Amino acid sequence: MSALDAFLARMADAYHLGMANAVLNWDQRTYMPHGGAEARSRQLGTLAKLEHELVVSTQTQDLLAAAEEARGEHAEDSAQRAMLRVARRGMDKAARVPTDLVVRMTETCALGEEAWAGARADDDYARFAPWLEKIIALKKEYAAAVMPGVPIYDALLDDYEEGMTAAALDPLFAELKRETVPLVAAIQTVSDRVSDELLTRDYDEGAQQEFGRKILTACGFPWDRGRLDASVHPFCTNFSPNDVRITTRYERNWMPGSLFGCLHEMGHAFYELNIDPAYEATPLGGGVSLGIHESQSRLWENMVGRSGEFWERYYPEAQAAFPRQLGSVPRDLFYKAINKVSPSFIRVEADEVTYNLHIILRYEMEQDLLNGRLSVKDAPGAWRQKMRESLGIEPPTNREGILQDVHWSGGGMGYFPTYTLGNILSAQFFEAALAAVPTIRTDLRAGRFSALYEWLRVNVHQHGRRYTPDELVQRATGKPMTLAPYVGYLQSKFKRVYGL
Amino acid sequence: MSALDAFLARMADAYHLGMANAVLNWDQRTYMPHGGAEARSRQLGTLAKLEHELVVSTQTQDLLAAAEEARGEHAEDSAQRAMLRVARRGMDKAARVPTDLVVRMTETCALGEEAWAGARADDDYARFAPWLEKIIALKKEYAAAVMPGVPIYDALLDDYEEGMTAAALDPLFAELKRETVPLVAAIQTVSDRVSDELLTRDYDEGAQQEFGRKILTACGFPWDRGRLDASVHPFCTNFSPNDVRITTRYERNWMPGSLFGCLHEMGHAFYELNIDPAYEATPLGGGVSLGIHESQSRLWENMVGRSGEFWERYYPEAQAAFPRQLGSVPRDLFYKAINKVSPSFIRVEADEVTYNLHIILRYEMEQDLLNGRLSVKDAPGAWRQKMRESLGIEPPTNREGILQDVHWSGGGMGYFPTYTLGNILSAQFFEAALAAVPTIRTDLRAGRFSALYEWLRVNVHQHGRRYTPDELVQRATGKPMTLAPYVGYLQSKFKRVYGL
Repeated sequence: MSALDAFLARMADAYHLGMANAVLNWDQRTYMPHGGAEARSRQLGTLAKLEHELVVSTQTQDLLAAAEEARGEHAEDSAQRAMLRVARRGMDKAARVPTDLVVRMTETCALGEEAWAGARADDDYARFAPWLEKIIALKKEYAAAVMPGVPIYDALLDDYEEGMTAAALDPLFAELKRETVPLVAAIQTVSDRVSDELLTRDYDEGAQQEFGRKILTACGFPWDRGRLDASVHPFCTNFSPNDVRITTRYERNWMPGSLFGCLHEMGHAFYELNIDPAYEATPLGGGVSLGIHESQSRLWENMVGRSGEFWERYYPEAQAAFPRQLGSVPRDLFYKAINKVSPSFIRVEADEVTYNLHIILRYEMEQDLLNGRLSVKDAPGAWRQKMRESLGIEPPTNREGILQDVHWSGGGMGYFPTYTLGNILSAQFFEAALAAVPTIRTDLRAGRFSALYEWLRVNVHQHGRRYTPDELVQRATGKPMTLAPYVGYLQSKFKRVYGL
Repeated sequence: MSALDAFLARMADAYHLGMANAVLNWDQRTYMPHGGAEARSRQLGTLAKLEHELVVSTQTQDLLAAAEEARGEHAEDSAQRAMLRVARRGMDKAARVPTDLVVRMTETCALGEEAWAGARADDDYARFAPWLEKIIALKKEYAAAVMPGVPIYDALLDDYEEGMTAAALDPLFAELKRETVPLVAAIQTVSDRVSDELLTRDYDEGAQQEFGRKILTACGFPWDRGRLDASVHPFCTNFSPNDVRITTRYERNWMPGSLFGCLHEMGHAFYELNIDPAYEATPLGGGVSLGIHESQSRLWENMVGRSGEFWERYYPEAQAAFPRQLGSVPRDLFYKAINKVSPSFIRVEADEVTYNLHIILRYEMEQDLLNGRLSVKDAPGAWRQKMRESLGIEPPTNREGILQDVHWSGGGMGYFPTYTLGNILSAQFFEAALAAVPTIRTDLRAGRFSALYEWLRVNVHQHGRRYTPDELVQRATGKPMTLAPYVGYLQSKFKRVYGL
């Protein structure tokens, strides 16, 4: 056995523990009865502890060092070099974090998520506040340990998006805001040209589920390697490249919620389903960053699912699925309705134009909370104020405000900016795919997804973590991440929708 | 921290790993897509390896030895003495089993169970045979390691039923057969007095599920601490005393399958739900043996669920749930139908009288397979022959024969006899409960279960593993396990049903 193989065999145990952890998380969010929460946090804590101990143990460190020394053996194999690079980065970060902190974070976040779900259901911020307090303290402790000397927020960001910093995000987000706000304002003057009333009719949950499954099937979701379930907050997770699970949520009076939830999570799922099987259980398995991951979900949700071409093929099926609600609605009205731009409270249901304003709000609030400029107690008020400033509306409840997202309760701070990176990249990847395969638009009209799917599989999915996010974007699109395709996409699509 | 506490803290990690393993098993049997099977076996193998390494490590052994030395400190506390006894027994057994064998058993059985589910669905014994071959070899290897010098079968039995041996089972089963066979024969002569046609009508799966939930709720199943799902083979599992999950299975043309499946697994669930919370994550947590566990499931399934008293209260609800099928059927016919005695192929759907003949068949076959007197290849034929001998019928397919049960595929050999021990004990416990609380029968007529539930909780459930199975039976019923109550119950009930 080569030194690298010996190291990989050791790391496979850590990988399997991480996957077991993911199963327990999935179960907690989908099926676990409330009584199971306390024990679940201990189970997750124990798994996280053993995984961390395994990764940072002297034995594993020695195996990695030996594999690095033998690097010459596989100088020609860039995948093996990449494995060592990714493993070293992970090892160095992990070794700086005390095991007991890992356990405290895991257990607290598991209970925090449970508390959040209850607090959200009852619109009771006070119940969640002490957990948010604890989680912020833990994230600060973690940031100081994992990347000492680096700003707290950058240290957290780096876990989700290698090398990303607030200094890089600030100008990007500022430019995006400059482009977006006038577009929103222009649309507001003619907002009566589009109505989404037809989407708020009474849509039976069973029919929504059935239609979602039909669309997933049409797009190529492999049911023998995946599942669709319901959860408070939609998500995608996987326990192997052959067991990839998505969730959505159903609201009777907001049909797009479940439908675009399905398409969004399906985009994430396609990424994990298509990673080179040779990378399974190695440091190269899994998506490379959350921004790249989100580019895949947003591409399927928006560039495909909210396109006119897609509904040329599937609107008759939507009418058949919901005859009472859509039977007499012309396709054009449906298309406009699912693309209505309007300031709204809920991020995951926001239109494409205002969406990033929701992200920027969270990005600013996270920094304030972590840097002590904002207290947990004052956070709901700050949320409302920022909503007023950027979107001109104020949520009447915390359920529609600060309690709407699961992320903070599960320890996901520094996570939100990757959503906007994903939006930007979704347009850049889609533009590159269209340039390479010009028939993609015609294909969409006919419900053929294979050329687009294949371009994404070959240029993005299969590589797993073999390239850094920057390298991957450069290789797939021929240039670094750039705002132009996304801004161009938003301008041209929504000026058309609103006849501007 | 006392020496015992230090040991218990260490063992809690092993406990949480075991619970994580149980979550992964539950998921595999309920929701996992087929593609996940290969990775799942690795995940389970990794968890089993780490759990085993943790239990048998020098550190844990030293902690146990220190706790034993300090035993004097808690001489007065019999629960703590019992913890040490149970821990020592588990430790000594575990230490004799090599970790790699634990991993091979876990991984093979996870894949074996998946192969079995497919083979059963397709009635394809050849697909399952190589797995059965592997599993038998592993069980022999395990038996020789865990209890060297003891007959293979007794070594396997001891994992499920402490101290039980084939030498003790043989005369018990022989006597039970002597009592049962003439009763079956007597009933056969008047078999036309009972028809179960009414149970084979077309029962919608959704309605079955709803009625099952209603009955579970009526009996006191706590939905905030448990779930009901569907699986190929019904089972009960738990991930803490507050997260206890049962499954059943639905057949359109055999309504009692799902209903009595629910009541059976609910009996198991009540046991785990009621164990003293102080024992959670200690060696005393969990039911003490499979025989005792099965006594609880059979008591609720049969003494309660198949009693005339129970249906005095709930038959009108059954009629309301299934008006087309039962609306015009008098209660007495329904009661007789659910108690029809007739040789049949499927163990879990067998009547109370012939049920144990199914167990004795498996008991004999397991011994033959393990002792090399029967080959895997010849096993389906042996099954058919034994069915002919003991029940006078021969299954037309392996699906209705050797492929019907999940147990062997998951490594459960030596497990089946505990079902008959459970039957015997169910009658003994029920008799003791009736003697202590004579109103129980009247209660059942009114749908009141609390007195029975409470007697079981106090006398059986709460103790967990604090007493050995023998001690528990003696304490709860005032005598050792004895066949008389069970045989008396069968004779009197079924002579009445058939008017003999």
